[in-house]
Amino acid sequence: MLIFCRQDLTENERGAILDAARAAGFEPLELGSTRIALHGEGERAGLEALPGVLRIGALPDTPVLVNEPDRRVVRVGPVEIGTGFIVAAGPCAVEDRQRLLDLAHAAKAAGCDILRGGAYKPRTSPYSFRGLGDKGLEYLKAAGEATGLPVVTEVLDPRDVAVAAEHADMLQIGTRNMMNYSLLVEVGRADRPVLLKRGMAATLAEFVFAAEYILLEGAPGVVLCERGIRSPEPSMRNTLDLAAVPALRHQTNLSVIVDPSHATGRRELVPPMTRAAAAAGADGVMIEIHDAPDQALCDGKQAVHPDRLAALVENLRKIAALAAEAEESQ
Amino acid sequence: MLIFCRQDLTENERGAILDAARAAGFEPLELGSTRIALHGEGERAGLEALPGVLRIGALPDTPVLVNEPDRRVVRVGPVEIGTGFIVAAGPCAVEDRQRLLDLAHAAKAAGCDILRGGAYKPRTSPYSFRGLGDKGLEYLKAAGEATGLPVVTEVLDPRDVAVAAEHADMLQIGTRNMMNYSLLVEVGRADRPVLLKRGMAATLAEFVFAAEYILLEGAPGVVLCERGIRSPEPSMRNTLDLAAVPALRHQTNLSVIVDPSHATGRRELVPPMTRAAAAAGADGVMIEIHDAPDQALCDGKQAVHPDRLAALVENLRKIAALAAEAEESQ
Amino acid sequence: MLIFCRQDLTENERGAILDAARAAGFEPLELGSTRIALHGEGERAGLEALPGVLRIGALPDTPVLVNEPDRRVVRVGPVEIGTGFIVAAGPCAVEDRQRLLDLAHAAKAAGCDILRGGAYKPRTSPYSFRGLGDKGLEYLKAAGEATGLPVVTEVLDPRDVAVAAEHADMLQIGTRNMMNYSLLVEVGRADRPVLLKRGMAATLAEFVFAAEYILLEGAPGVVLCERGIRSPEPSMRNTLDLAAVPALRHQTNLSVIVDPSHATGRRELVPPMTRAAAAAGADGVMIEIHDAPDQALCDGKQAVHPDRLAALVENLRKIAALAAEAEESQ
Amino acid sequence: MLIFCRQDLTENERGAILDAARAAGFEPLELGSTRIALHGEGERAGLEALPGVLRIGALPDTPVLVNEPDRRVVRVGPVEIGTGFIVAAGPCAVEDRQRLLDLAHAAKAAGCDILRGGAYKPRTSPYSFRGLGDKGLEYLKAAGEATGLPVVTEVLDPRDVAVAAEHADMLQIGTRNMMNYSLLVEVGRADRPVLLKRGMAATLAEFVFAAEYILLEGAPGVVLCERGIRSPEPSMRNTLDLAAVPALRHQTNLSVIVDPSHATGRRELVPPMTRAAAAAGADGVMIEIHDAPDQALCDGKQAVHPDRLAALVENLRKIAALAAEAEESQ
Repeated sequence: MLIFCRQDLTENERGAILDAARAAGFEPLELGSTRIALHGEGERAGLEALPGVLRIGALPDTPVLVNEPDRRVVRVGPVEIGTGFIVAAGPCAVEDRQRLLDLAHAAKAAGCDILRGGAYKPRTSPYSFRGLGDKGLEYLKAAGEATGLPVVTEVLDPRDVAVAAEHADMLQIGTRNMMNYSLLVEVGRADRPVLLKRGMAATLAEFVFAAEYILLEGAPGVVLCERGIRSPEPSMRNTLDLAAVPALRHQTNLSVIVDPSHATGRRELVPPMTRAAAAAGADGVMIEIHDAPDQALCDGKQAVHPDRLAALVENLRKIAALAAEAEESQ
Repeated sequence: MLIFCRQDLTENERGAILDAARAAGFEPLELGSTRIALHGEGERAGLEALPGVLRIGALPDTPVLVNEPDRRVVRVGPVEIGTGFIVAAGPCAVEDRQRLLDLAHAAKAAGCDILRGGAYKPRTSPYSFRGLGDKGLEYLKAAGEATGLPVVTEVLDPRDVAVAAEHADMLQIGTRNMMNYSLLVEVGRADRPVLLKRGMAATLAEFVFAAEYILLEGAPGVVLCERGIRSPEPSMRNTLDLAAVPALRHQTNLSVIVDPSHATGRRELVPPMTRAAAAAGADGVMIEIHDAPDQALCDGKQAVHPDRLAALVENLRKIAALAAEAEESQ
Repeated sequence: MLIFCRQDLTENERGAILDAARAAGFEPLELGSTRIALHGEGERAGLEALPGVLRIGALPDTPVLVNEPDRRVVRVGPVEIGTGFIVAAGPCAVEDRQRLLDLAHAAKAAGCDILRGGAYKPRTSPYSFRGLGDKGLEYLKAAGEATGLPVVTEVLDPRDVAVAAEHADMLQIGTRNMMNYSLLVEVGRADRPVLLKRGMAATLAEFVFAAEYILLEGAPGVVLCERGIRSPEPSMRNTLDLAAVPALRHQTNLSVIVDPSHATGRRELVPPMTRAAAAAGADGVMIEIHDAPDQALCDGKQAVHPDRLAALVENLRKIAALAAEAEESQ
Repeated sequence: MLIFCRQDLTENERGAILDAARAAGFEPLELGSTRIALHGEGERAGLEALPGVLRIGALPDTPVLVNEPDRRVVRVGPVEIGTGFIVAAGPCAVEDRQRLLDLAHAAKAAGCDILRGGAYKPRTSPYSFRGLGDKGLEYLKAAGEATGLPVVTEVLDPRDVAVAAEHADMLQIGTRNMMNYSLLVEVGRADRPVLLKRGMAATLAEFVFAAEYILLEGAPGVVLCERGIRSPEPSMRNTLDLAAVPALRHQTNLSVIVDPSHATGRRELVPPMTRAAAAAGADGVMIEIHDAPDQALCDGKQAVHPDRLAALVENLRKIAALAAEAEESQ
């Protein structure tokens, strides 16, 4: 069963509900500040009348919040995701204050909307560079302020969420952590919109449930990011599942952006795949850029040079407009 | 080793070369009319001087013909594939003479370039409808003649290639037969361009080698068709691998078209995925249409209604133009 | 609908039923000699009374013959598959008469039951060795006669089935052809038991339907062979799906053997995987052997040396006995 | 570069090394207590002479600790993993003190070695039961003490590692968290052996690097657990990759156990797959048991009834002995 509580529930009331649920034989589980799931076989009588309880319903089998009728427009600083085509760009990893600043200015000048960059980097080998950590967050914040671009950055550890939320406008959950439910809960509580990347072998149903985890905790918005799934094809890093874009937009109220850099791992495939994303109806793309890709500490082979960005962004907006036009006329 | 023979090799010369190769300890294998592969450990001396032999080289480890520098434009009746964006449309299976004719006229009126339709249908269950066979080929030919659209149809059996080649302008190898090398050899000899679909678990390297099989036998052209690969995602029939489009166009001289109907199996995903294909740089798309999809004997759920085709085709050509423009400026 | 005909149906009766079905508006499809599927929307009245018709039923949605209650024991020359644990061994490709004879004697001496060897080889590259063809069939037949081992060999082309059936005791359908339905129909008519390998991306449901295709045509037996499926894991050729063994044995009346050589592609993994197959309840294994694996024309890296075979076979029979014992007591 | 420090490094010395590395232009990263990785382009001169530094080497490209020559036997309470075949059994989730105690006694009586049970449960839907948490840990500890069985339980959050380590003899990293590197580092520091499950789409190379993460932090042991990978096959939960067992045992010094319950999700496939694991050379299996599987709060369909456990365990040990014998004689 699922208890729906009043928005202005007091801590006393919450405690009383939890105690009563346990006394009635249930295992209660708080889902954000206004819902309490009851598991196990208990006795429902009496719970409905407790102060602060609005009503008691069944536990849903399918996601609820992501299926509400109104599309969820997400605000990231001055940018809206869900009302036009946005471009996020930046280096894979933050490596150096000046280089980041230069890339941020290049992204801004090319017409990009959001600055991306990794301070905490999840790496397959423990011997690899794992990012600059808190220092990277500071560089990102400074680059965002210098350019006016809002900043998105990945968090890996629930204990880093608070500090990341102080420095970034949007928090990213990476592909390796899409099923890290402790982390999803924690970012859901950080009062920041969340960019949720698809797990590298996650089904769309699992992906959407992960977004529900975050929204239940009160996050002001979730944006999905398709970034490719594992397949037997060896010539690319992953297989970009672009059909997921219209499928997710049909079945949820969420915006969907696409990351062709991690999906393909090959620089020459990034521009055509950003175009394909725009045509498929995506709400935006995220592109890795680097001014000296061969020196990059992380994923240089997939980075696009900032010189090519302005023409690409302009072309993408035209394709996105044609796709939007066609969709509306259907 | 690989013997390259003269174009005008006589049958006598060919026989003499094969005999000499066997006598020298090799297992000779004819690759089309002008190449003979030699396997095993034989004695090369003497072979080079035989009448009809141009030269002897090493057996290649990688495909050769698909990597020659000039792009291969393929002519299918009056249509060129490789110089603009083409749309092939038609029903999954040919079911009925009149319905096929109506759909062909609808496709023509909507601006499509090629008529597709299945006379021989590969079906998972032996109890399913396997197509009208030769009668279906006749209907297709008649519909092509009535509309001026060239016709592409799938062959499943080497013994059917000749009759299919009499009735169709282009022969299709389906996903289940991409590694049916006997069939590849046979269609390669039929003097018809071939539409080769990617195997449902084939790597790009295997796909390209399959095209090489066909070209080696002398086919006047091969066009690749990306149609999705198997993945764990259960909500779609396959995962459309659109990044394969620019990847294949980079690494071969072949044109690549996309079949979003079989890739997704869901009608509502077909229009956005055709747009994405156009934006990714595909040379065209192949779309299943049906005027009463719920009555279709085969794959009705993925068929688009012909009423929606004209607007879609127009939109696709605009997107393809934007993508081509961007590619050229790079 | 599905017409069940008498076993002793005459050609006249058959023709009359087909004509009547067409006249009634159906597309008839012969499934072996005693069943005729009717597709399309025709008029059933009158068909039931035709001479030779036993009854008319619904077209099944699921396989029928492979689900009949009695387990199908398959006889391959003097060997029974389905009543004990069998071992088939031999080289990947037949390369040379003497080497094949030596390997066959080694297999016999080690206690193997069946000789395997490829005369027609499906190869990814058209430039690779495609087998000795008919000469290979003769060598196989001779090796089988010399050792008393029955012979299994792969066919790739419907036009080769007759000659292969003259030389071999069992015909094999390889992984690339599991969905080559023309070939399945043809081997089903050859009066030889068939070893059907799982397609490299086939689901178990598709695999079982492929066996149904063969049995419908009258084959005296089908044995399934699990040989690995494609996965993203790069360190092995395929992922051996051993859980398919008990799953297929639960859901069908067919025997299942396992080919760990092609599944793993790594010689050192073959013995443990044959043991695992025996313990999983498989009816046997198929092992590639070669006395000089580094010189093999095909797949040498996965071949086991015949010297190690006798101890392996003995160990496998003990494990199979323990597994059978445990299964019976459940 | 990689600095190797003395075992008895003082905190002062550590701080001095980190400061010097930063001053020299590096980003230092502590790997456990005795290794410091240096990333970026700094100046090495002078670092080697610092107090506490043993030597400076190159950063490895491949795992090091898991490849050292001696096999790592892991002690879990009174049990050794790596010297015989072990069986871990228990319920998926800890639901109730008494039921857990009963199952633990049943496991002990059946000859099992380790008690498994989940206190923290990762669930796809946020509305599902997520386990009893700390209360579950207490029940597990009590059941372990009552039976003498050591206890293994999963941790999901770095903040729960300390309390889990107080209650359990071995900490488990589940498939969803194999790439949760913050969690790997934290369990690596908890002075408990770790059971590391393979990520559901992880390659063996990634799996082995995850073990290296844990060992670098000083964990007294890591045991790998193969539990199936995602594949397109819909009839089972995952595809159990048993060939990974001998492959991992060849390429690392780690023990490997197998979890056929989560791999298949089907109770009837669990006993044959445990047998297959034993025959493949696994160091043990982990089995989910439940006395009333249809009432289980989590994964009831894959649980084996404890009544069948004793005969299974006995059979497994016989098969494991036959496999060990065969391996030694090779």
